Amino acid sequence: MTVTYDKVALIGLGLIASSMAHAIRAGGLARVIAGHAKTAETRRVALEIGLCDTVHETAAEAVKDADLVVLAVPVGAMGAVAAEIAPHLKPGATVTDVGSVKQAVIDAVAPHLPPGIHFIPGHPVAGTEYSGPRSGFATLFQNRWWLLTPLAQADIGAVAKLRAFLQEMGANVDEMDAGHHDLVLAVTSHTPHLIAYTMVGVADDLGRVTDTEVIKYSAAGFRDFTRIAASDPTMWRDVFLNNKDATLEILGRFTEELFALQRAIRIGDGEHLFAYFTRTRAIRRSIIEAGQDTSAPNFGRSKGTP
Amino acid sequence: MTVTYDKVALIGLGLIASSMAHAIRAGGLARVIAGHAKTAETRRVALEIGLCDTVHETAAEAVKDADLVVLAVPVGAMGAVAAEIAPHLKPGATVTDVGSVKQAVIDAVAPHLPPGIHFIPGHPVAGTEYSGPRSGFATLFQNRWWLLTPLAQADIGAVAKLRAFLQEMGANVDEMDAGHHDLVLAVTSHTPHLIAYTMVGVADDLGRVTDTEVIKYSAAGFRDFTRIAASDPTMWRDVFLNNKDATLEILGRFTEELFALQRAIRIGDGEHLFAYFTRTRAIRRSIIEAGQDTSAPNFGRSKGTP
Repeated sequence: MTVTYDKVALIGLGLIASSMAHAIRAGGLARVIAGHAKTAETRRVALEIGLCDTVHETAAEAVKDADLVVLAVPVGAMGAVAAEIAPHLKPGATVTDVGSVKQAVIDAVAPHLPPGIHFIPGHPVAGTEYSGPRSGFATLFQNRWWLLTPLAQADIGAVAKLRAFLQEMGANVDEMDAGHHDLVLAVTSHTPHLIAYTMVGVADDLGRVTDTEVIKYSAAGFRDFTRIAASDPTMWRDVFLNNKDATLEILGRFTEELFALQRAIRIGDGEHLFAYFTRTRAIRRSIIEAGQDTSAPNFGRSKGTP
Repeated sequence: MTVTYDKVALIGLGLIASSMAHAIRAGGLARVIAGHAKTAETRRVALEIGLCDTVHETAAEAVKDADLVVLAVPVGAMGAVAAEIAPHLKPGATVTDVGSVKQAVIDAVAPHLPPGIHFIPGHPVAGTEYSGPRSGFATLFQNRWWLLTPLAQADIGAVAKLRAFLQEMGANVDEMDAGHHDLVLAVTSHTPHLIAYTMVGVADDLGRVTDTEVIKYSAAGFRDFTRIAASDPTMWRDVFLNNKDATLEILGRFTEELFALQRAIRIGDGEHLFAYFTRTRAIRRSIIEAGQDTSAPNFGRSKGTP
């Protein structure tokens, strides 16, 4: 139990911020948690379930006297929030964010922040398909990676303090350059989400196969895609609009490979298909060995079965 | 406990056949289970774990006196197996298969079978990313759909008997035309698998992002793709080679939609993206309501968390 920051302000109270609130409470990592959400309904729920010590109607009020401010709003809203809170920040405070895109957030946020504020952009590589203030849980960050993309002039002490705080919530912390972050995430997250959304949309839209059939027979593979395609639409719209170049680059690679496999199917090149499908098994094994997924069949969906 | 068939022969002892063996035992659905696998190692494991009552070096021996013969080999091997067993089948026996493609299996198998044999093609819409004789478990088919695609001249009594047997293993049984089956599965299974294989291959192949990074940060979505991309390469090669037309049709629709979303990203059309991402959430809800997936966050991977 180490109080790392006296007061933490969570701006936005969705999955990530509500999980942080639970993890901060569980670990005794702050004396006071202040929260703000844009909609009255989210603020009402946050009060009802006691998510924060105080819930504020404006972000400006929430950040008052806060030692750590966490921007946990969709990427497209970061700039406006930064502009609003800037005059109200405590001198010497640390501001971080949890956006899935980093360069665009830096461009939108940094210009608004006054000198003496430590802005340390961040991204917890964790989540579920649920959203909103009720979806959070204290162990979301356990053994997940939390990426920090500090600017060149970042204060080493402030970064170390934030890193310790994130580690106390169970996360492993890595640092990298914002541009590289955006490329890595385009591969591990953004393009997979776009592809999953597309496949689910195609299935929904196909006149000759009914939705009922798609749903009944989804256990053959399709259902794995629907989980990530059920993620928050606002968040994902903003991700794609703000990580355009890297996403389009990886999409280009993806369609190139897909066309090669499509051609192998058309001409009946079984060797090409077999070699490709064999290579991809190794990646799955490595992910399990790295503790980033379960080895239980079907992700362990069927409890009680081997 | 109803013995439906006196003797069942399982040809091929992978995930599906070994799960059938466990389910047949658990339900007391046959007096004798005979098994055959092509490789000596698989036969050795089957004997070691007591999967079948008898294990045979050839399919021809295994089907002797069997009332039900289940072809559980890759789709591309079905024709050769049918040719081999045809002269040894018990008159009046039922032959079914568990291939993921139906028209190609019918074309490959039916011509070999003598009159008086009931050939009833089938496909259990169930599986995991594991394969081999040790991967089976008795509850694999519980509340999953098992599709039968009987030919026009099929014997109604033989179909009813097979249906009852499959239901005793926990499956829901539907009947449909083989061509429609192949289209439906191209949507719910074959195209999703091809896309998942492609995305995992792209990630593995990208010089600027290391495999270590892909693996560490896979929790952001990518890991969902790797599960199905870890499936048996031989089985999947045969699926694509044998369901070419339907897969290429759905792939065409997929790339068309993907290009539309790619264009929306390029021109910054947030409304298009938001509308698309909102629509796909409903499908996920329906799959959960239909009992074809868990509602637990992240498929319930993190046990003990809400």
